[in-house]
Amino acid sequence: MTSNKAMGAGNQQERLDAEWVVGFVDGEGCFHIGINRQPGMRSGWQVLPEFRVVQHRRDERILRDMQSYYGCGSVVVNNGDRMELRIRGIENLTRVVKFFEEHPLRTRKQNDFRKFARVIRLMERGDHLRASGLLEVAQIALSMNRHRNRAASRILRDFTPNIANMR
Amino acid sequence: MTSNKAMGAGNQQERLDAEWVVGFVDGEGCFHIGINRQPGMRSGWQVLPEFRVVQHRRDERILRDMQSYYGCGSVVVNNGDRMELRIRGIENLTRVVKFFEEHPLRTRKQNDFRKFARVIRLMERGDHLRASGLLEVAQIALSMNRHRNRAASRILRDFTPNIANMR
Repeated sequence: MTSNKAMGAGNQQERLDAEWVVGFVDGEGCFHIGINRQPGMRSGWQVLPEFRVVQHRRDERILRDMQSYYGCGSVVVNNGDRMELRIRGIENLTRVVKFFEEHPLRTRKQNDFRKFARVIRLMERGDHLRASGLLEVAQIALSMNRHRNRAASRILRDFTPNIANMR
Repeated sequence: MTSNKAMGAGNQQERLDAEWVVGFVDGEGCFHIGINRQPGMRSGWQVLPEFRVVQHRRDERILRDMQSYYGCGSVVVNNGDRMELRIRGIENLTRVVKFFEEHPLRTRKQNDFRKFARVIRLMERGDHLRASGLLEVAQIALSMNRHRNRAASRILRDFTPNIANMR
């Protein structure tokens, strides 16, 4: 079933195979929960979930193929000669989450994905606009990012006493 | 067809999907032609082709799944907390080449694969044991490895005048 879809790198028009996408994302994908200071917002913080796939610029084409596959996202410069497919926005990310629920990842990245999906669900309901929801997002973000997440740490450290003010 | 195969990270017994393997290797795989000094051999050099997939040790399981998928290779420590699936040996690599000819890579890694496949074919015929074949291997190795390949450079630089002695 898959063999007639896999026509090789020469055929650029052809739609990607779902399992190929899963394998590639198992290797190269990143589910990230950004949290930024945003004084204009009621909570003072903006939650910015993002799905990213980074490649050397020579493989920009495959990022554009994935952009077409998902029907959303932007292909932009990541750093130096690296490009990224970046998908933001709750509506787009809901589609991405649905895809990976139907086609599960096989590496431990699946754990990050599950947490990411929980944040997207929570944001769909607007829960991140309330202190309790924001704290949950911060806890999830801290547990899934292997690098430091200062914003999430700060929310956990400073925010809990202020819940009353936000409600 | 793929959906009933993709049962997720929890189901460890299940066979990998071919397109998943292609996607993962497009991201994480490496086709490498090693060339080592080997005074015991007639040409003085040993050609050591290798297919590698490196992962953090937390994903050792997926490397073992790929080992089972190909029915060959070893899962060994790569460096620190990184493990690698390493497939060596002409018979095993012929199987790997056959797989990627039936299921082509979609990134530019396909170019490296084509060169790798050419070396495997050449070695199947024993051509690398002759000076002309060894020189071809060295040229291919130099064109595919983005890092320095001193052995290949040295063969190209020093070897050509000695072809007569090797025949």
